[in-house]
Amino acid sequence: MTQAQAIVFDLYGTLYDVHSVVQRCNAAYPGQGMQISELWRQKQLEYTWLRSLMGQYVPFEQATDDALVYTCRRLGLDLDPATRAALCEAYLKLDPYPEVPAALQQLNELGLPLAILSNGSVFSIDSVVRHSGLQHHFAHLLSVERAGVFKPDFRVYTLACQALGLAPGQILFVSSNAWDAAGARHFGFEVCWVNRRGNTFDELGVTPHTVAGGLDEVPALFRTAGVNSAHRAG
Amino acid sequence: MTQAQAIVFDLYGTLYDVHSVVQRCNAAYPGQGMQISELWRQKQLEYTWLRSLMGQYVPFEQATDDALVYTCRRLGLDLDPATRAALCEAYLKLDPYPEVPAALQQLNELGLPLAILSNGSVFSIDSVVRHSGLQHHFAHLLSVERAGVFKPDFRVYTLACQALGLAPGQILFVSSNAWDAAGARHFGFEVCWVNRRGNTFDELGVTPHTVAGGLDEVPALFRTAGVNSAHRAG
Repeated sequence: MTQAQAIVFDLYGTLYDVHSVVQRCNAAYPGQGMQISELWRQKQLEYTWLRSLMGQYVPFEQATDDALVYTCRRLGLDLDPATRAALCEAYLKLDPYPEVPAALQQLNELGLPLAILSNGSVFSIDSVVRHSGLQHHFAHLLSVERAGVFKPDFRVYTLACQALGLAPGQILFVSSNAWDAAGARHFGFEVCWVNRRGNTFDELGVTPHTVAGGLDEVPALFRTAGVNSAHRAG
Repeated sequence: MTQAQAIVFDLYGTLYDVHSVVQRCNAAYPGQGMQISELWRQKQLEYTWLRSLMGQYVPFEQATDDALVYTCRRLGLDLDPATRAALCEAYLKLDPYPEVPAALQQLNELGLPLAILSNGSVFSIDSVVRHSGLQHHFAHLLSVERAGVFKPDFRVYTLACQALGLAPGQILFVSSNAWDAAGARHFGFEVCWVNRRGNTFDELGVTPHTVAGGLDEVPALFRTAGVNSAHRAG
Protein backbone atom coordinates (compact mmCIF):
# COMPACT_ATOMS: atom_id res chain seq x y z
CA MET A 1 0.00 0.00 0.00
CA THR A 2 1.17 3.50 -0.78
CA GLN A 3 1.25 6.52 1.55
CA ALA A 4 1.51 8.94 -1.38
CA GLN A 5 -0.26 12.29 -1.02
CA ALA A 6 -0.64 13.00 -4.74
CA ILE A 7 -0.57 11.11 -8.03
CA VAL A 8 1.31 12.35 -11.07
CA PHE A 9 0.71 10.71 -14.44
CA ASP A 10 2.70 10.61 -17.61
CA LEU A 11 0.49 11.39 -20.60
CA TYR A 12 1.76 9.85 -23.86
CA GLY A 13 1.45 6.08 -23.76
CA THR A 14 0.24 6.08 -20.14
CA LEU A 15 -3.15 7.82 -20.05
CA TYR A 16 -3.44 8.27 -23.83
CA ASP A 17 -2.62 5.79 -26.59
CA VAL A 18 -0.01 7.23 -28.98
CA HIS A 19 -1.04 4.60 -31.51
CA SER A 20 -4.44 6.28 -31.81
CA VAL A 21 -2.79 7.86 -34.88
CA VAL A 22 -2.64 4.51 -36.71
CA GLN A 23 -6.06 5.00 -38.29
CA ARG A 24 -5.08 8.35 -39.80
CA CYS A 25 -1.72 6.90 -40.91
CA ASN A 26 -3.56 4.05 -42.61
CA ALA A 27 -5.86 6.50 -44.35
CA ALA A 28 -2.83 8.29 -45.82
CA TYR A 29 -0.66 5.18 -46.37
CA PRO A 30 -2.89 2.10 -46.59
CA GLY A 31 -1.59 -0.93 -44.70
CA GLN A 32 1.44 0.90 -43.28
CA GLY A 33 -0.21 2.64 -40.34
CA MET A 34 1.29 0.61 -37.51
CA GLN A 35 4.78 0.55 -39.02
CA ILE A 36 4.67 4.35 -39.42
CA SER A 37 3.27 4.91 -35.94
CA GLU A 38 5.90 2.73 -34.27
CA LEU A 39 8.90 4.29 -36.03
CA TRP A 40 7.40 7.76 -35.57
CA ARG A 41 7.04 7.24 -31.81
CA GLN A 42 10.55 5.72 -31.50
CA LYS A 43 12.16 8.67 -33.30
CA GLN A 44 10.00 11.19 -31.43
CA LEU A 45 11.39 9.85 -28.14
CA GLU A 46 14.95 9.71 -29.47
CA TYR A 47 14.70 13.32 -30.61
CA THR A 48 13.52 14.47 -27.18
CA TRP A 49 16.48 12.70 -25.54
CA LEU A 50 19.04 13.84 -28.09
CA ARG A 51 17.90 17.46 -28.20
CA SER A 52 17.95 17.55 -24.41
CA LEU A 53 21.54 16.30 -24.38
CA MET A 54 22.58 18.73 -27.13
CA GLY A 55 21.01 21.67 -25.27
CA GLN A 56 18.78 22.17 -28.33
CA TYR A 57 15.31 22.03 -26.80
CA VAL A 58 12.38 22.50 -29.16
CA PRO A 59 8.66 22.20 -28.33
CA PHE A 60 7.31 18.65 -28.36
CA GLU A 61 5.25 19.43 -31.48
CA GLN A 62 8.48 20.20 -33.34
CA ALA A 63 10.07 16.92 -32.25
CA THR A 64 6.87 15.14 -33.32
CA ASP A 65 6.91 16.83 -36.72
CA ASP A 66 10.64 16.14 -37.20
CA ALA A 67 10.13 12.48 -36.32
CA LEU A 68 7.29 12.19 -38.84
CA VAL A 69 9.45 13.72 -41.57
CA TYR A 70 12.25 11.28 -40.75
CA THR A 71 9.85 8.33 -40.71
CA CYS A 72 8.44 9.11 -44.15
CA ARG A 73 11.90 9.74 -45.63
CA ARG A 74 13.16 6.47 -44.20
CA LEU A 75 10.17 4.49 -45.43
CA GLY A 76 10.30 6.18 -48.83
CA LEU A 77 6.84 7.76 -48.44
CA ASP A 78 5.88 11.07 -50.00
CA LEU A 79 4.68 13.45 -47.28
CA ASP A 80 2.66 16.31 -48.69
CA PRO A 81 1.94 19.36 -46.48
CA ALA A 82 -1.73 18.48 -45.93
CA THR A 83 -0.91 14.91 -44.79
CA ARG A 84 1.89 16.19 -42.58
CA ALA A 85 -0.44 18.68 -40.90
CA ALA A 86 -3.24 16.12 -40.52
CA LEU A 87 -0.98 13.50 -38.94
CA CYS A 88 0.59 15.96 -36.49
CA GLU A 89 -2.92 17.18 -35.65
CA ALA A 90 -3.81 13.58 -34.76
CA TYR A 91 -1.29 13.80 -31.88
CA LEU A 92 -3.51 16.50 -30.35
CA LYS A 93 -6.54 14.20 -30.33
CA LEU A 94 -5.26 10.95 -28.90
CA ASP A 95 -7.70 8.54 -27.29
CA PRO A 96 -7.38 7.66 -23.61
CA TYR A 97 -6.96 3.95 -22.92
CA PRO A 98 -10.40 2.41 -22.32
CA GLU A 99 -10.02 1.95 -18.56
CA VAL A 100 -8.65 5.44 -17.92
CA PRO A 101 -11.83 7.55 -17.39
CA ALA A 102 -13.30 5.23 -14.74
CA ALA A 103 -9.93 4.79 -13.01
CA LEU A 104 -9.42 8.56 -12.81
CA GLN A 105 -12.90 8.88 -11.34
CA GLN A 106 -12.06 6.32 -8.64
CA LEU A 107 -8.74 8.00 -7.91
CA ASN A 108 -10.45 11.38 -7.65
CA GLU A 109 -12.72 9.97 -4.98
CA LEU A 110 -9.64 9.32 -2.82
CA GLY A 111 -9.39 13.10 -2.39
CA LEU A 112 -5.74 13.30 -3.48
CA PRO A 113 -4.65 15.81 -6.10
CA LEU A 114 -4.04 14.30 -9.55
CA ALA A 115 -1.64 15.86 -12.03
CA ILE A 116 -0.15 15.23 -15.45
CA LEU A 117 3.58 15.76 -16.04
CA SER A 118 4.34 15.46 -19.73
CA ASN A 119 6.90 16.07 -22.46
CA GLY A 120 4.09 17.82 -24.32
CA SER A 121 3.82 21.59 -24.52
CA VAL A 122 1.14 23.35 -22.49
CA PHE A 123 -0.88 23.59 -25.72
CA SER A 124 -0.51 19.90 -26.57
CA ILE A 125 -1.39 18.66 -23.09
CA ASP A 126 -4.39 20.95 -22.91
CA SER A 127 -5.58 19.89 -26.38
CA VAL A 128 -5.34 16.16 -25.67
CA VAL A 129 -6.95 16.33 -22.23
CA ARG A 130 -9.81 18.62 -23.30
CA HIS A 131 -10.50 16.58 -26.44
CA SER A 132 -11.14 13.57 -24.21
CA GLY A 133 -13.20 15.57 -21.71
CA LEU A 134 -11.06 14.49 -18.74
CA GLN A 135 -9.70 17.89 -17.71
CA HIS A 136 -11.86 18.13 -14.56
CA HIS A 137 -9.91 15.28 -12.97
CA PHE A 138 -6.62 17.14 -12.79
CA ALA A 139 -5.39 19.76 -10.34
CA HIS A 140 -2.32 20.45 -12.50
CA LEU A 141 -1.34 19.95 -16.14
CA LEU A 142 2.44 20.30 -16.07
CA SER A 143 4.58 20.66 -19.18
CA VAL A 144 8.34 20.31 -19.56
CA GLU A 145 8.18 23.71 -21.28
CA ARG A 146 9.06 25.53 -18.08
CA ALA A 147 12.18 23.37 -17.60
CA GLY A 148 13.30 23.78 -21.24
CA VAL A 149 14.39 20.15 -21.37
CA PHE A 150 12.63 16.79 -21.74
CA LYS A 151 12.31 13.77 -19.45
CA PRO A 152 14.15 12.05 -17.87
CA ASP A 153 16.14 15.17 -16.93
CA PHE A 154 15.56 15.71 -13.21
CA ARG A 155 14.58 19.35 -13.74
CA VAL A 156 11.34 18.04 -15.25
CA TYR A 157 10.39 15.84 -12.31
CA THR A 158 11.15 18.76 -9.98
CA LEU A 159 8.27 20.68 -11.58
CA ALA A 160 5.79 18.25 -10.00
CA CYS A 161 7.25 18.71 -6.52
CA GLN A 162 7.08 22.48 -6.92
CA ALA A 163 3.49 22.49 -8.16
CA LEU A 164 2.26 20.12 -5.46
CA GLY A 165 4.43 21.40 -2.60
CA LEU A 166 5.51 17.84 -1.86
CA ALA A 167 8.80 15.95 -1.59
CA PRO A 168 9.52 13.31 -4.28
CA GLY A 169 8.81 10.44 -1.86
CA GLN A 170 5.31 11.80 -1.17
CA ILE A 171 4.31 11.50 -4.83
CA LEU A 172 3.15 8.39 -6.69
CA PHE A 173 4.37 8.70 -10.28
CA VAL A 174 2.55 6.55 -12.83
CA SER A 175 4.04 5.85 -16.25
CA SER A 176 3.89 3.16 -18.93
CA ASN A 177 7.22 4.26 -20.36
CA ALA A 178 9.90 2.17 -18.67
CA TRP A 179 12.62 4.79 -19.24
CA ASP A 180 10.35 7.44 -17.65
CA ALA A 181 9.52 5.19 -14.72
CA ALA A 182 13.26 4.54 -14.24
CA GLY A 183 14.07 8.27 -14.39
CA ALA A 184 11.31 8.99 -11.88
CA ARG A 185 12.61 6.28 -9.56
CA HIS A 186 16.16 7.68 -9.73
CA PHE A 187 14.66 11.09 -8.93
CA GLY A 188 13.01 9.74 -5.80
CA PHE A 189 9.30 9.36 -6.64
CA GLU A 190 7.33 6.31 -5.62
CA VAL A 191 6.83 4.68 -9.01
CA CYS A 192 4.11 2.55 -10.54
CA TRP A 193 4.90 1.16 -13.99
CA VAL A 194 1.77 0.47 -16.04
CA ASN A 195 2.55 -2.46 -18.29
CA ARG A 196 -0.49 -3.20 -20.44
CA ARG A 197 1.26 -5.30 -23.08
CA GLY A 198 3.75 -7.51 -21.31
CA ASN A 199 6.69 -5.24 -22.13
CA THR A 200 10.18 -5.71 -20.71
CA PHE A 201 11.35 -3.16 -18.13
CA ASP A 202 14.57 -1.38 -19.02
CA GLU A 203 17.92 -2.14 -17.39
CA LEU A 204 18.68 1.29 -15.99
CA GLY A 205 19.75 0.36 -12.47
CA VAL A 206 16.31 0.57 -10.80
CA THR A 207 12.94 -1.18 -10.78
CA PRO A 208 9.50 0.33 -10.18
CA HIS A 209 7.93 -0.03 -6.73
CA THR A 210 4.82 -1.54 -8.28
CA VAL A 211 3.67 -2.85 -11.66
CA ALA A 212 0.06 -2.51 -12.78
CA GLY A 213 -1.55 -4.16 -15.79
CA GLY A 214 -3.68 -1.08 -16.43
CA LEU A 215 -4.75 2.15 -14.76
CA ASP A 216 -7.70 0.31 -13.20
CA GLU A 217 -5.23 -1.44 -10.87
CA VAL A 218 -3.88 1.81 -9.44
CA PRO A 219 -6.76 2.63 -7.01
CA ALA A 220 -6.08 -0.66 -5.19
CA LEU A 221 -2.65 0.66 -4.20
CA PHE A 222 -4.44 3.07 -1.86
CA ARG A 223 -6.74 0.56 -0.19
CA THR A 224 -5.94 -0.82 3.23
CA ALA A 225 -8.34 -3.73 2.85
CA GLY A 226 -9.75 -5.64 -0.09
CA VAL A 227 -8.16 -7.16 -3.13
CA ASN A 228 -4.95 -5.45 -4.24
CA SER A 229 -4.58 -6.58 -7.81
CA ALA A 230 -1.46 -4.57 -8.53
CA HIS A 231 1.71 -6.58 -8.29
CA ARG A 232 4.40 -5.41 -5.88
CA ALA A 233 7.78 -5.40 -7.67
CA GLY A 234 11.34 -5.51 -6.32
CA MET B 1 37.66 21.09 -49.49
CA THR B 2 38.31 21.28 -45.78
CA GLN B 3 40.77 23.51 -43.93
CA ALA B 4 40.63 21.32 -40.82
CA GLN B 5 43.83 20.92 -38.81
CA ALA B 6 42.95 17.62 -37.17
CA ILE B 7 40.55 14.72 -37.69
CA VAL B 8 38.53 13.21 -34.87
CA PHE B 9 36.72 9.91 -35.42
CA ASP B 10 33.87 8.25 -33.69
CA LEU B 11 34.70 4.59 -32.97
CA TYR B 12 31.59 2.38 -32.70
CA GLY B 13 29.91 2.05 -36.07
CA THR B 14 32.31 4.50 -37.74
CA LEU B 15 35.78 2.92 -37.69
CA TYR B 16 34.66 -0.41 -36.21
CA ASP B 17 31.64 -2.51 -37.09
CA VAL B 18 29.44 -3.08 -34.02
CA HIS B 19 27.80 -5.95 -35.88
CA SER B 20 31.08 -7.87 -35.75
CA VAL B 21 29.41 -9.50 -32.75
CA VAL B 22 26.78 -11.22 -34.94
CA GLN B 23 28.94 -14.31 -35.44
CA ARG B 24 29.32 -14.84 -31.70
CA CYS B 25 25.61 -14.15 -31.17
CA ASN B 26 24.79 -16.73 -33.82
CA ALA B 27 27.07 -19.24 -32.13
CA ALA B 28 25.12 -18.80 -28.89
CA TYR B 29 21.66 -18.34 -30.45
CA PRO B 30 21.64 -19.91 -33.93
CA GLY B 31 19.87 -17.83 -36.57
CA GLN B 32 19.15 -14.93 -34.22
CA GLY B 33 22.51 -13.16 -34.36
CA MET B 34 21.50 -10.11 -36.38
CA GLN B 35 18.23 -9.59 -34.49
CA ILE B 36 20.12 -9.73 -31.18
CA SER B 37 22.90 -7.45 -32.40
CA GLU B 38 20.48 -4.80 -33.70
CA LEU B 39 18.34 -4.65 -30.57
CA TRP B 40 21.46 -4.80 -28.38
CA ARG B 41 22.99 -1.81 -30.19
CA GLN B 42 19.71 0.17 -30.12
CA LYS B 43 19.31 -0.32 -26.36
CA GLN B 44 23.00 0.31 -25.72
CA LEU B 45 22.63 3.74 -27.34
CA GLU B 46 19.34 4.46 -25.55
CA TYR B 47 20.93 3.60 -22.22
CA THR B 48 23.83 5.99 -22.83
CA TRP B 49 21.38 8.80 -23.64
CA LEU B 50 19.01 8.04 -20.78
CA ARG B 51 21.69 7.60 -18.14
CA SER B 52 23.27 10.87 -19.26
CA LEU B 53 19.94 12.68 -18.85
CA MET B 54 19.31 11.04 -15.47
CA GLY B 55 22.78 12.00 -14.23
CA GLN B 56 23.43 8.28 -13.72
CA TYR B 57 26.60 7.75 -15.76
CA VAL B 58 28.05 4.27 -15.83
CA PRO B 59 31.01 3.03 -17.89
CA PHE B 60 30.16 2.04 -21.46
CA GLU B 61 30.82 -1.63 -20.64
CA GLN B 62 28.03 -1.48 -18.06
CA ALA B 63 25.59 0.04 -20.57
CA THR B 64 26.61 -2.65 -23.04
CA ASP B 65 26.06 -5.41 -20.50
CA ASP B 66 22.72 -3.91 -19.38
CA ALA B 67 21.56 -3.69 -22.99
CA LEU B 68 22.49 -7.33 -23.60
CA VAL B 69 20.55 -8.43 -20.52
CA TYR B 70 17.51 -6.45 -21.70
CA THR B 71 17.79 -7.87 -25.22
CA CYS B 72 17.84 -11.47 -24.04
CA ARG B 73 14.96 -10.90 -21.61
CA ARG B 74 12.89 -9.23 -24.31
CA LEU B 75 13.60 -11.98 -26.85
CA GLY B 76 12.98 -14.70 -24.26
CA LEU B 77 16.54 -16.05 -24.48
CA ASP B 78 18.33 -17.65 -21.56
CA LEU B 79 21.60 -15.77 -20.90
CA ASP B 80 24.03 -17.85 -18.87
CA PRO B 81 27.05 -16.13 -17.26
CA ALA B 82 29.57 -17.63 -19.72
CA THR B 83 27.58 -16.48 -22.77
CA ARG B 84 27.05 -13.04 -21.24
CA ALA B 85 30.78 -12.64 -20.63
CA ALA B 86 31.70 -13.95 -24.08
CA LEU B 87 29.30 -11.62 -25.88
CA CYS B 88 30.42 -8.55 -23.92
CA GLU B 89 34.03 -9.58 -24.61
CA ALA B 90 33.18 -9.52 -28.33
CA TYR B 91 32.62 -5.73 -28.02
CA LEU B 92 36.32 -5.42 -27.12
CA LYS B 93 37.40 -7.15 -30.34
CA LEU B 94 35.33 -5.48 -33.05
CA ASP B 95 36.57 -5.55 -36.63
CA PRO B 96 37.39 -2.32 -38.42
CA TYR B 97 35.43 -1.77 -41.63
CA PRO B 98 37.44 -3.15 -44.57
CA GLU B 99 38.48 0.21 -46.01
CA VAL B 100 39.55 1.71 -42.67
CA PRO B 101 43.23 0.64 -42.37
CA ALA B 102 44.21 1.98 -45.81
CA ALA B 103 42.19 5.18 -45.34
CA LEU B 104 43.85 5.87 -41.98
CA GLN B 105 47.24 5.33 -43.64
CA GLN B 106 46.40 7.89 -46.32
CA LEU B 107 45.09 10.36 -43.76
CA ASN B 108 48.24 9.91 -41.68
CA GLU B 109 50.31 10.91 -44.68
CA LEU B 110 48.57 14.31 -44.64
CA GLY B 111 50.52 15.06 -41.47
CA LEU B 112 47.43 16.05 -39.42
CA PRO B 113 46.84 14.57 -35.99
CA LEU B 114 44.19 11.85 -35.91
CA ALA B 115 42.16 11.10 -32.79
CA ILE B 116 39.30 8.91 -31.62
CA LEU B 117 36.55 10.38 -29.43
CA SER B 118 34.29 7.61 -28.20
CA ASN B 119 31.58 6.68 -25.73
CA GLY B 120 33.82 3.75 -24.82
CA SER B 121 35.88 3.70 -21.65
CA VAL B 122 39.65 4.15 -21.91
CA PHE B 123 39.95 0.37 -21.49
CA SER B 124 37.39 -0.42 -24.22
CA ILE B 125 38.85 2.00 -26.76
CA ASP B 126 42.36 0.75 -26.10
CA SER B 127 41.26 -2.88 -26.39
CA VAL B 128 39.43 -2.42 -29.68
CA VAL B 129 42.15 -0.33 -31.32
CA ARG B 130 45.03 -2.57 -30.21
CA HIS B 131 43.19 -5.73 -31.21
CA SER B 132 43.01 -4.38 -34.77
CA GLY B 133 46.64 -3.19 -34.71
CA LEU B 134 45.70 0.37 -35.71
CA GLN B 135 46.89 2.19 -32.58
CA HIS B 136 49.94 3.77 -34.27
CA HIS B 137 47.66 5.95 -36.42
CA PHE B 138 46.23 7.94 -33.52
CA ALA B 139 47.70 10.84 -31.57
CA HIS B 140 44.85 10.66 -29.03
CA LEU B 141 42.37 8.04 -27.86
CA LEU B 142 39.74 10.09 -26.02
CA SER B 143 37.04 8.57 -23.84
CA VAL B 144 33.89 10.19 -22.45
CA GLU B 145 35.09 8.87 -19.08
CA ARG B 146 36.70 12.17 -18.19
CA ALA B 147 33.43 14.06 -18.89
CA GLY B 148 31.30 11.58 -16.91
CA VAL B 149 28.55 11.78 -19.50
CA PHE B 150 27.95 10.32 -22.98
CA LYS B 151 27.58 11.88 -26.42
CA PRO B 152 25.96 14.08 -27.63
CA ASP B 153 26.49 16.14 -24.45
CA PHE B 154 28.75 19.04 -25.44
CA ARG B 155 31.15 18.32 -22.57
CA VAL B 156 32.26 15.26 -24.53
CA TYR B 157 33.05 17.11 -27.75
CA THR B 158 34.96 19.70 -25.70
CA LEU B 159 37.45 16.97 -24.75
CA ALA B 160 38.70 16.85 -28.35
CA CYS B 161 39.29 20.61 -28.47
CA GLN B 162 41.20 20.44 -25.20
CA ALA B 163 43.37 17.51 -26.27
CA LEU B 164 44.18 19.00 -29.67
CA GLY B 165 44.41 22.65 -28.60
CA LEU B 166 42.06 23.61 -31.43
CA ALA B 167 38.73 25.42 -31.77
CA PRO B 168 35.71 23.33 -32.86
CA GLY B 169 35.75 24.80 -36.38
CA GLN B 170 39.36 23.66 -36.89
CA ILE B 171 38.44 20.01 -36.38
CA LEU B 172 36.91 17.61 -38.90
CA PHE B 173 34.67 15.22 -36.97
CA VAL B 174 33.86 11.95 -38.74
CA SER B 175 30.97 9.76 -37.61
CA SER B 176 28.58 7.22 -39.10
CA ASN B 177 26.06 7.82 -36.33
CA ALA B 178 23.67 10.50 -37.55
CA TRP B 179 22.78 11.61 -34.02
CA ASP B 180 26.50 11.96 -33.20
CA ALA B 181 27.16 13.88 -36.40
CA ALA B 182 24.22 16.18 -35.56
CA GLY B 183 25.50 16.73 -32.02
CA ALA B 184 28.98 17.49 -33.34
CA ARG B 185 27.55 19.94 -35.86
CA HIS B 186 25.56 21.75 -33.14
CA PHE B 187 28.79 21.88 -31.12
CA GLY B 188 30.63 23.60 -33.97
CA PHE B 189 32.83 20.92 -35.53
CA GLU B 190 33.16 20.55 -39.28
CA VAL B 191 31.28 17.30 -39.78
CA CYS B 192 31.57 14.43 -42.24
CA TRP B 193 28.83 11.80 -41.98
CA VAL B 194 29.97 8.38 -43.20
CA ASN B 195 26.91 6.69 -44.64
CA ARG B 196 27.91 3.21 -45.85
CA ARG B 197 24.43 1.73 -46.06
CA GLY B 198 22.13 4.39 -47.49
CA ASN B 199 20.80 5.37 -44.06
CA THR B 200 18.52 8.37 -43.48
CA PHE B 201 20.05 11.34 -41.65
CA ASP B 202 18.20 12.39 -38.51
CA GLU B 203 15.97 15.46 -38.31
CA LEU B 204 17.75 17.29 -35.52
CA GLY B 205 17.95 20.76 -37.01
CA VAL B 206 21.31 20.42 -38.79
CA THR B 207 22.93 18.56 -41.68
CA PRO B 208 26.54 17.38 -42.00
CA HIS B 209 28.96 19.48 -44.07
CA THR B 210 29.86 16.43 -46.16
CA VAL B 211 28.62 12.90 -46.65
CA ALA B 212 31.04 10.08 -47.50
CA GLY B 213 30.14 6.56 -48.62
CA GLY B 214 33.07 5.12 -46.67
CA LEU B 215 36.24 6.20 -44.88
CA ASP B 216 38.13 5.88 -48.18
CA GLU B 217 36.34 9.02 -49.40
CA VAL B 218 37.62 11.17 -46.51
CA PRO B 219 41.18 11.78 -47.81
CA ALA B 220 39.73 13.47 -50.90
CA LEU B 221 38.27 16.19 -48.66
CA PHE B 222 41.83 17.41 -48.10
CA ARG B 223 42.92 17.45 -51.73
CA THR B 224 43.03 20.73 -53.65
CA ALA B 225 43.13 18.97 -57.02
CA GLY B 226 42.00 15.60 -58.29
CA VAL B 227 38.76 13.71 -57.91
CA ASN B 228 36.78 14.55 -54.79
CA SER B 229 34.42 11.65 -54.46
CA ALA B 230 32.83 12.80 -51.22
CA HIS B 231 29.53 14.54 -51.71
CA ARG B 232 29.13 18.05 -50.36
CA ALA B 233 25.88 18.26 -48.39
CA GLY B 234 23.70 21.26 -47.48
